[in-house]
Amino acid sequence: MRENSIKNLLAEGNKAVNGWCSTPSPFSAEVLAHAGFDSVTIDLQHGLIDYQMALSMMQAINTTETPVMCRVPWLENGIIMKMLDAGVAGVICPMVNNAADAENFVAACSYPPRGRRSFGPTRAVMHWGGDYAKKANDQMLKIAMIETVEALENMDAIMSTPGLNGIYIGPSDLSFSMGHEARLDPVEPAVVEAVATIRDNAHKHGLFCGLHCSDPAYAKDMHEKGMNLVSIPSDNRLLMGACKDWIAGARGSNAKEEAPKSY
Amino acid sequence: MRENSIKNLLAEGNKAVNGWCSTPSPFSAEVLAHAGFDSVTIDLQHGLIDYQMALSMMQAINTTETPVMCRVPWLENGIIMKMLDAGVAGVICPMVNNAADAENFVAACSYPPRGRRSFGPTRAVMHWGGDYAKKANDQMLKIAMIETVEALENMDAIMSTPGLNGIYIGPSDLSFSMGHEARLDPVEPAVVEAVATIRDNAHKHGLFCGLHCSDPAYAKDMHEKGMNLVSIPSDNRLLMGACKDWIAGARGSNAKEEAPKSY
Amino acid sequence: MRENSIKNLLAEGNKAVNGWCSTPSPFSAEVLAHAGFDSVTIDLQHGLIDYQMALSMMQAINTTETPVMCRVPWLENGIIMKMLDAGVAGVICPMVNNAADAENFVAACSYPPRGRRSFGPTRAVMHWGGDYAKKANDQMLKIAMIETVEALENMDAIMSTPGLNGIYIGPSDLSFSMGHEARLDPVEPAVVEAVATIRDNAHKHGLFCGLHCSDPAYAKDMHEKGMNLVSIPSDNRLLMGACKDWIAGARGSNAKEEAPKSY
Amino acid sequence: MRENSIKNLLAEGNKAVNGWCSTPSPFSAEVLAHAGFDSVTIDLQHGLIDYQMALSMMQAINTTETPVMCRVPWLENGIIMKMLDAGVAGVICPMVNNAADAENFVAACSYPPRGRRSFGPTRAVMHWGGDYAKKANDQMLKIAMIETVEALENMDAIMSTPGLNGIYIGPSDLSFSMGHEARLDPVEPAVVEAVATIRDNAHKHGLFCGLHCSDPAYAKDMHEKGMNLVSIPSDNRLLMGACKDWIAGARGSNAKEEAPKSY
Amino acid sequence: MRENSIKNLLAEGNKAVNGWCSTPSPFSAEVLAHAGFDSVTIDLQHGLIDYQMALSMMQAINTTETPVMCRVPWLENGIIMKMLDAGVAGVICPMVNNAADAENFVAACSYPPRGRRSFGPTRAVMHWGGDYAKKANDQMLKIAMIETVEALENMDAIMSTPGLNGIYIGPSDLSFSMGHEARLDPVEPAVVEAVATIRDNAHKHGLFCGLHCSDPAYAKDMHEKGMNLVSIPSDNRLLMGACKDWIAGARGSNAKEEAPKSY
Amino acid sequence: MRENSIKNLLAEGNKAVNGWCSTPSPFSAEVLAHAGFDSVTIDLQHGLIDYQMALSMMQAINTTETPVMCRVPWLENGIIMKMLDAGVAGVICPMVNNAADAENFVAACSYPPRGRRSFGPTRAVMHWGGDYAKKANDQMLKIAMIETVEALENMDAIMSTPGLNGIYIGPSDLSFSMGHEARLDPVEPAVVEAVATIRDNAHKHGLFCGLHCSDPAYAKDMHEKGMNLVSIPSDNRLLMGACKDWIAGARGSNAKEEAPKSY
Repeated sequence: MRENSIKNLLAEGNKAVNGWCSTPSPFSAEVLAHAGFDSVTIDLQHGLIDYQMALSMMQAINTTETPVMCRVPWLENGIIMKMLDAGVAGVICPMVNNAADAENFVAACSYPPRGRRSFGPTRAVMHWGGDYAKKANDQMLKIAMIETVEALENMDAIMSTPGLNGIYIGPSDLSFSMGHEARLDPVEPAVVEAVATIRDNAHKHGLFCGLHCSDPAYAKDMHEKGMNLVSIPSDNRLLMGACKDWIAGARGSNAKEEAPKSY
Repeated sequence: MRENSIKNLLAEGNKAVNGWCSTPSPFSAEVLAHAGFDSVTIDLQHGLIDYQMALSMMQAINTTETPVMCRVPWLENGIIMKMLDAGVAGVICPMVNNAADAENFVAACSYPPRGRRSFGPTRAVMHWGGDYAKKANDQMLKIAMIETVEALENMDAIMSTPGLNGIYIGPSDLSFSMGHEARLDPVEPAVVEAVATIRDNAHKHGLFCGLHCSDPAYAKDMHEKGMNLVSIPSDNRLLMGACKDWIAGARGSNAKEEAPKSY
Repeated sequence: MRENSIKNLLAEGNKAVNGWCSTPSPFSAEVLAHAGFDSVTIDLQHGLIDYQMALSMMQAINTTETPVMCRVPWLENGIIMKMLDAGVAGVICPMVNNAADAENFVAACSYPPRGRRSFGPTRAVMHWGGDYAKKANDQMLKIAMIETVEALENMDAIMSTPGLNGIYIGPSDLSFSMGHEARLDPVEPAVVEAVATIRDNAHKHGLFCGLHCSDPAYAKDMHEKGMNLVSIPSDNRLLMGACKDWIAGARGSNAKEEAPKSY
Repeated sequence: MRENSIKNLLAEGNKAVNGWCSTPSPFSAEVLAHAGFDSVTIDLQHGLIDYQMALSMMQAINTTETPVMCRVPWLENGIIMKMLDAGVAGVICPMVNNAADAENFVAACSYPPRGRRSFGPTRAVMHWGGDYAKKANDQMLKIAMIETVEALENMDAIMSTPGLNGIYIGPSDLSFSMGHEARLDPVEPAVVEAVATIRDNAHKHGLFCGLHCSDPAYAKDMHEKGMNLVSIPSDNRLLMGACKDWIAGARGSNAKEEAPKSY
Repeated sequence: MRENSIKNLLAEGNKAVNGWCSTPSPFSAEVLAHAGFDSVTIDLQHGLIDYQMALSMMQAINTTETPVMCRVPWLENGIIMKMLDAGVAGVICPMVNNAADAENFVAACSYPPRGRRSFGPTRAVMHWGGDYAKKANDQMLKIAMIETVEALENMDAIMSTPGLNGIYIGPSDLSFSMGHEARLDPVEPAVVEAVATIRDNAHKHGLFCGLHCSDPAYAKDMHEKGMNLVSIPSDNRLLMGACKDWIAGARGSNAKEEAPKSY
Repeated sequence: MRENSIKNLLAEGNKAVNGWCSTPSPFSAEVLAHAGFDSVTIDLQHGLIDYQMALSMMQAINTTETPVMCRVPWLENGIIMKMLDAGVAGVICPMVNNAADAENFVAACSYPPRGRRSFGPTRAVMHWGGDYAKKANDQMLKIAMIETVEALENMDAIMSTPGLNGIYIGPSDLSFSMGHEARLDPVEPAVVEAVATIRDNAHKHGLFCGLHCSDPAYAKDMHEKGMNLVSIPSDNRLLMGACKDWIAGARGSNAKEEAPKSY
């Protein structure tokens, strides 16, 4: 079986930088796959992407050694199973709010006897190799998002779910749920503290912890404070920023009024 | 923030004529957007359209000032959230049968604290403007379909749901559910009366009321009786009718045997 | 081999009514295929359609017995060959201005020894049957457009090309070329006369003659005057007209100000 | 209404051979439709296919008389309804584990009063004919998959569901659930016996029984033992095998090490 | 008729900054359309884009007021006509090497009597308005690329072509043709001088002049020296650069080893 | 720069087996890429494939180490350039009939000073590496098809074209042109001899020689007689054959009446 390099990298305690595709475009995804990220995640939730497009994007990313993960739109059996059959190296599930959600998520990702994943890894076996069926439960990452007050309260129960590999924090929804403005790179003390608490608890449970970021300096700081994986906001946000910078540079203005920071 | 013209038009008590896209085609949708409708609705339920196609159709319609709404296939979080993130001006939800359904629907469409919509308006913020996050709950239309006997019985509870903006009537399913043949432009007295009752109750609750129609004369009559919004049956039904008329005209027959009237 | 019904219909001297697809949409094409036309033509010239889309549209039309023809964008070997390999029942070629163009066109459509079509009827043999290779030269329609002053002058030479089956008249370009406004359903006497002359000469050469039309009454009149095949202006023109009529009907206006008549 | 030939064939007690599309490709599906199968099934579960692609594949298959069925990804209202509206001749539903699942599935497929299918057969009425609405409940096949230990235990209750037409066995998941390795063409005695038991019980309830197979000889044996319908493993498995055979033939090796047998 | 803002901006002597789409993605194009460019060009030559994709990208860009131009792959009638019918505001043609090429190009873009463009502005009339046919020759930009030694020698003849609006310089091909390494932002004195000569001659002939650039500072310098329009290298180059910068920022390296500079 | 393994394999005098994609499907292409071929060729001539689809197929094939070549539809600058920019390892050009065609073809594939390829290897540089521009002329295969009587007569002149790497024989068109029935695996003595003559002459000019085949035993024989590369007829032909074999096996018939042999 092909190595799942993002799993290994995190298992060895290294810091990962993760690309994030919201743009429905295989070529755009291929660009990210060549940029030097440790992994690239296709976002089927807030990205403008559904299954068929995600499949094409996986093919484009798999032209490189960069592993592909996905975020599914919701905790639903159908799409989780289909993305795994297509060969993703890991699944990020939004809005895991309690132990039942976490168990439900891991079971959807796992073959019997651990779970209820149905058998038929059509593309996965071609991509990962003939022993995929035997090793998939162990190798494919299962990552739960903690991003609500309810999830904060159920953190330990969620993190105790057997088979779960990591936690991913969505700061916008977490801020929203805690009564603050939705934004990335939180500065509100209560949210900053919640992020740190999740990270530390994840580590206690032997899980890695990832965070959705906006500014690379903020991401670097998070890495230094122990966060295992940081992500860019999205490919479209980076593209928009690069276009605005170029225009400002060509016009000699320094109009760096970016797209709104808050999501 | 860009104005939601279909919301304003209905809020001001004007009569709206709504286009209806069942054909999976951005250009076909663009034609409707130029035809003079007050809004165009992409039907992800009975239309031959899923998310990725709907996104392309929204881009085509957004080349004009005509606002885009959608009908989702079912009361499911995933697709409701994705269509809102893509920037629809309103969501029509089929088969809202009781207060719990209505609450569930509005919550899926609304950011906290009103609802549980997850944050990430990737295209919506680009289309509507930087203050989308603040105004979306107030501005994006949430429209529940009443189309079963169960829903008739729970009408007041459904219509009392805070945040709901309007009611949309599906006469085919309503007729079916009442024990009659499924058809548009109902003439069966019991169904005609049910339609009128829904409309009048909607108005009492401060909601607008829309109706799916087939014949423009029937639609005009409904408008005159107080219905706020009427829709064409679908783009493909109109195209089929126009082709048959043209053929009959060229052949000199007056064979106007149309596609079946009943759906 | 499957019968080429549009070829037979015209060979037997019947009048044909032809659908015209400018909308890049397989489902829209499928609607036309069910509407009762004698043939449906996919327009790769002014329609918003290229090869891959045309292939999908052919599959949709081939769900019925309605034969599919195409208009290629230009007299180019590549696209003519590809459309024939995909299985079209006939090819309409724009801007055939002289005998060399006509010969070039027929040769591109014909297997040796008549022409230079390369062998590989990938989908055609599946659609038409195992003897496609033997019968294609005879069965697939080759139709040259006469639509310029130069072509008018070279009419006899063009029409004498062995293997050519019919002539198709583009009144807009013909009017333009003759110094008048580009429009369908010409009323300008010189253009009306040119159309009649082309038609009569085609008949003298044993060819059928077709005309692109806008109004069905005009088309009926042309049929009665001997034109063999008449076409609708396009699916998008009919859809736009049907939408405007419906809106006008629902609003009680009789605002029938259609899309511009002139193309 | 067009005849549903796969329904009739099975109702008359004939043996059916079913094609299976996992490849997201209308042309690949069209090839299968021409190959001589009694039906072709589009797999939206383990196939790399979602709704929009399935629609295009249906159009390609409907260029022939071969009927199209589908396997949906999961027991979900939305996709079942959409596939029926698109015109499938039958729906195979995975993981039907008890009577409630079976009832839920049949209700999702059936118009009132039998079920809760919403009305709007946009493409189905065009494909099947104007009386589709009246006959769909009776004519469209509803096939439940029995593929878990739980389902084995609830077999009689599942099979007693009014409106159910047949049972389809997924040997990989069944083997998995029974504690054995997931594989097609089971040889493990307990699994072989379970398959026979399901088949015999289906017959007692007046239902046909189908089986997913890998090797044609195994399929032939199953036919002879009373199985009503057998399926190829998938188009991509057959294509892979044919390529490997060709390469081995050209190289003069007899390296027939195929893709893994177990799924 | 809608205003062609990029034509007017250049006619008034303003400096333009032009976006450049090489990524086959409507959403990526929509991002550029919102970024503040004066125009966005879809590159069908070296971009990974053909007609059908370009059409979808035009729809996405036309959701804003930003005008769309295109670069066609080659001086070929078919694609020039199709892009104009789709509604582009201007056409950039590569490899215009002499007066005959220039005349051929302008004629392909122009309705009679100026040229030989065939009539059928299917989407263009919808986008630009009912008088498109009358004004298209005057309003749609025709821009010839000068990028070879042959073209340098024929500069005056090319620039004298009636109806031509502007010149666009491709520095990579120009450098190549002059015997130097292909690269943007040329520093080789002979190439720098050739660029200046083209620009000054264009101005003498009343034409604007544009340049493909890489670095915004170089572009600003070119603007100041009289260049009328400067373009970004491509959307994918900017995205790649932004990803590499973000990764370097998050890792605390300042590894700014970008994608190769030379194209 | 990444190694061009098919170039090296042939340069070292090894025998190659080449896959052939006529099916417009990235996943189908990915299956072929995993099957063990030495290279896979995307056929844009008789395959049902144009540029945008070919690009997606290249991404799918590039998930493996198997190199991708293409056959272009015709000797046209635009598509040759676009396929090279997309990153193909080699181009097969149909209908190269004389020295001028051969020179024209090689020039279209080569950067100055050898040829006139325009600079902009958007995807190629990402796939092959940063020194693509310097090495592309040397590394990318240029393969001319000899498949007409005219080409037979001009064989030496064609094969003397500097930069040409190999010859590919299309036996169907060659048979046709020589007055025989179009078919693969020719048995007609004159055609068999022509094939041998082309092969031997190619070797004298230091070129490799490839042949389009149908039966693997015929291909093996050709290999043994000195042919350097043999291709399967097409993916769809192999899929059709495998389906028919499976059906016959399951039915116990040995009805091996395949798709027609002649192309």
